Amino acid sequence: MNQIKAFCFDVFGTVVDWRSGIARDAAIFFERHGLAGVDPLRFADAWRSRYQPAMQACRDGHRPYVRLDVLHRENMEYVLAEMHVDTRDIKESELAWLNMAWHRLDPWPDVVAGLTRLKTKYIIAPASNGNIALMVDIAKRAGIPWDAILGAEVTQAYKPAPQAYTRMSEILGLRPEEICMAAAHNSDLKAAQECGLATAFVARPSEHGPGQTMDLAPTGDWSIVARDFKDLASQAGC
Amino acid sequence: MNQIKAFCFDVFGTVVDWRSGIARDAAIFFERHGLAGVDPLRFADAWRSRYQPAMQACRDGHRPYVRLDVLHRENMEYVLAEMHVDTRDIKESELAWLNMAWHRLDPWPDVVAGLTRLKTKYIIAPASNGNIALMVDIAKRAGIPWDAILGAEVTQAYKPAPQAYTRMSEILGLRPEEICMAAAHNSDLKAAQECGLATAFVARPSEHGPGQTMDLAPTGDWSIVARDFKDLASQAGC
Repeated sequence: MNQIKAFCFDVFGTVVDWRSGIARDAAIFFERHGLAGVDPLRFADAWRSRYQPAMQACRDGHRPYVRLDVLHRENMEYVLAEMHVDTRDIKESELAWLNMAWHRLDPWPDVVAGLTRLKTKYIIAPASNGNIALMVDIAKRAGIPWDAILGAEVTQAYKPAPQAYTRMSEILGLRPEEICMAAAHNSDLKAAQECGLATAFVARPSEHGPGQTMDLAPTGDWSIVARDFKDLASQAGC
Repeated sequence: MNQIKAFCFDVFGTVVDWRSGIARDAAIFFERHGLAGVDPLRFADAWRSRYQPAMQACRDGHRPYVRLDVLHRENMEYVLAEMHVDTRDIKESELAWLNMAWHRLDPWPDVVAGLTRLKTKYIIAPASNGNIALMVDIAKRAGIPWDAILGAEVTQAYKPAPQAYTRMSEILGLRPEEICMAAAHNSDLKAAQECGLATAFVARPSEHGPGQTMDLAPTGDWSIVARDFKDLASQAGC
């Protein structure tokens, strides 16, 4: 703990509540386009379910790094088609607005207070698969005081590829053990731990809605287990 | 002016006073190592004079992108040798400390107040040739509230190469004319303008000390000419 100089954060699920946020804007979109029959939460889940496979093509080298805004757009069109929404009659600006819903996600209620405290003693940065513009828009809207925007667009690698963690350490000029990866996902922490980073687990039991079964508790030997970001700040001495 | 969404800043000279800062830490270093005869300001100027040629090798493609911390270290050793300082008797940690003087530079007195106001309406980010860790350390020490750290390590291009500006526009998801490049150097603004960016000139007449002859006044048709960062914020409606 004493050697940690930076806390790097997963964002989707850990910092922001993507499911409610996407459903909120999708409901507006569907109503505006006479598609009131489409369930916004089901749409949010379907959109998010294509997130990992889309990045996998980049991780495997089948595709060069493409920023997440582009993958989100491809996935959105796929899911809308699957739900029999004919997008040909919808203006491009409206489709672009829906894709930008990821830029308008709200943080969980403890986030800004916890990060503001952590920032007094540590470097804080997102280590997200989201691209820089996406992270900046979320942060400015919510008042999240990041010191830098790290993550996939800077490392050119999607988590949990090891380069996503090792390049972050090179970029920060810090040894891996001086960086603590914080996430609500055990798989992210496992990959970070394998690269030598410290780890902090913060459960987000409603990330996937009321029926969530994954990541309700820590499944590894993490450096810190915290109730929320305020508790994380307290445990980090802030 | 109405279309500008982000202000991106040159840092060395424009945001921070590199000459006084390097001389301050060099004086400590020289005294500690019995080298009181070396003039710290002359050393600062000599170190900085190797900045452009070192980056040129990367711009020309003779060398892949190498972060500025590495170029600074190479240049430091060259200049110390030129000044007949034998570094073989000096501990590595001491040499590393001197190289990190760039991470401890102070901003000009108007910077934090001006940027804090600009941040309320615009994205603000450094567009510096300095690497991310360098920018983060300067910002945390001085309380500079950047929204993101952009610049050479993110674009993998050193200004004034056009990619340093065009890739920044792609990364921010903004059209070039929605970004205003702010600098104390007419050459930086000329290169940004050629890429379609808006431009803001802020003179820093003592960057190079009392004998400065360059960049005392705007030499191009820049979008904004401001006395300092507070005036820049006022002209930008903040």
